[in-house]
Amino acid sequence: MNFLEERIVKDGVVKEGNVLKVDSFLNHQMDIKLLDQMGAEFKRRFAKKPINKILTIEASGIGIACVAAQHFDVPVVFAKKSQSINLDGEMYVAEVESFTHKCRNHVIVSQKFLTPEDHVLIIDDFLANGCALQGLIQIVQSAGATVEGIGIAIEKGFQSGGRIIRNLGFQLESLAIVDGMDAAAGTVTFRSQEEQKEAEQPAEKCEQCRSATLD
Amino acid sequence: MNFLEERIVKDGVVKEGNVLKVDSFLNHQMDIKLLDQMGAEFKRRFAKKPINKILTIEASGIGIACVAAQHFDVPVVFAKKSQSINLDGEMYVAEVESFTHKCRNHVIVSQKFLTPEDHVLIIDDFLANGCALQGLIQIVQSAGATVEGIGIAIEKGFQSGGRIIRNLGFQLESLAIVDGMDAAAGTVTFRSQEEQKEAEQPAEKCEQCRSATLD
Repeated sequence: MNFLEERIVKDGVVKEGNVLKVDSFLNHQMDIKLLDQMGAEFKRRFAKKPINKILTIEASGIGIACVAAQHFDVPVVFAKKSQSINLDGEMYVAEVESFTHKCRNHVIVSQKFLTPEDHVLIIDDFLANGCALQGLIQIVQSAGATVEGIGIAIEKGFQSGGRIIRNLGFQLESLAIVDGMDAAAGTVTFRSQEEQKEAEQPAEKCEQCRSATLD
Repeated sequence: MNFLEERIVKDGVVKEGNVLKVDSFLNHQMDIKLLDQMGAEFKRRFAKKPINKILTIEASGIGIACVAAQHFDVPVVFAKKSQSINLDGEMYVAEVESFTHKCRNHVIVSQKFLTPEDHVLIIDDFLANGCALQGLIQIVQSAGATVEGIGIAIEKGFQSGGRIIRNLGFQLESLAIVDGMDAAAGTVTFRSQEEQKEAEQPAEKCEQCRSATLD
């Protein structure tokens, strides 16, 4: 197990309905030393990429992104989530459907802060069905910028988000992939690091598939 | 001028209605090196306080708080804002009225993450009328914890929030206090560092006044 998996075993709480609570160290109270370790690991995994900007989404992605940004020496932009749109200036807007909450949300970034020159690392705390992440990818592509990679703290490997993103050819690095949870026993099963490595080999890009899924 | 005031002059945009846009470096795109300088300055100003936790509020306070936390070597808790309350577990809830948006909001923190042993530094990006900040103070006090100080990036000195908080006896440190803005000329007037220093001397505590304002 790596440092994040160990922490999930130690302090994560499994609840009925495939809910994993990590609010004591990741997304309500935040252990800044853990975030720093995560930032160093993202830097190691994306060392060869010419990243000049990190994009995340409010609220729980922001802390992880800001601490990671120190390892990349780049600025962070955070997308705003809103059910309504108040267009103050020129914005990139992606409408995404939330699988979990059965509602539509807008993901919004000012056009000033993403340009065709940008090489973007997208960072977020959780990946399950990947709706928010798809919105972020759509926004980067709308700006003509390049998605160099996606760094996730915890991926729910039994939901479809990660597979879709890898099928689209993106380098997706999840520091912990949860393949199963047992609320009664309070246990979590992680995908082994070896399997992760295979999963993280990007598949051949399929432009047709990509545009079909994201547009 | 200090480093933050210089940056506001360089990259801030003054708009009609006393609006100061700092979204290119502070609250949409974030310059992480600037945040790090701010963190070091907060540490200098609160060096004598036994701070063991930083409390902030989503979304734009989180980045500043997480980078500052590295200078204090403490965890960060961020309060959630919600118009409705979904009580999942035991929460501290403060209802605050937004002067700007003419609506009521709830500021929410899980009871697990604030205890009577906590010595809290509250951090946020902006202080104007101070409604959100009053909610955070109320929550810390509900938990029986101690507010050791309040660190703000930009205070609108011509609005009442800062004066109220200082009148209540808290050590409030605003890295830049804007006393006036001229949208036509695009200029910002800062309170001088000397005047700031005087303003930052906490007044004698008045328990009656404090409870009258916060309860």
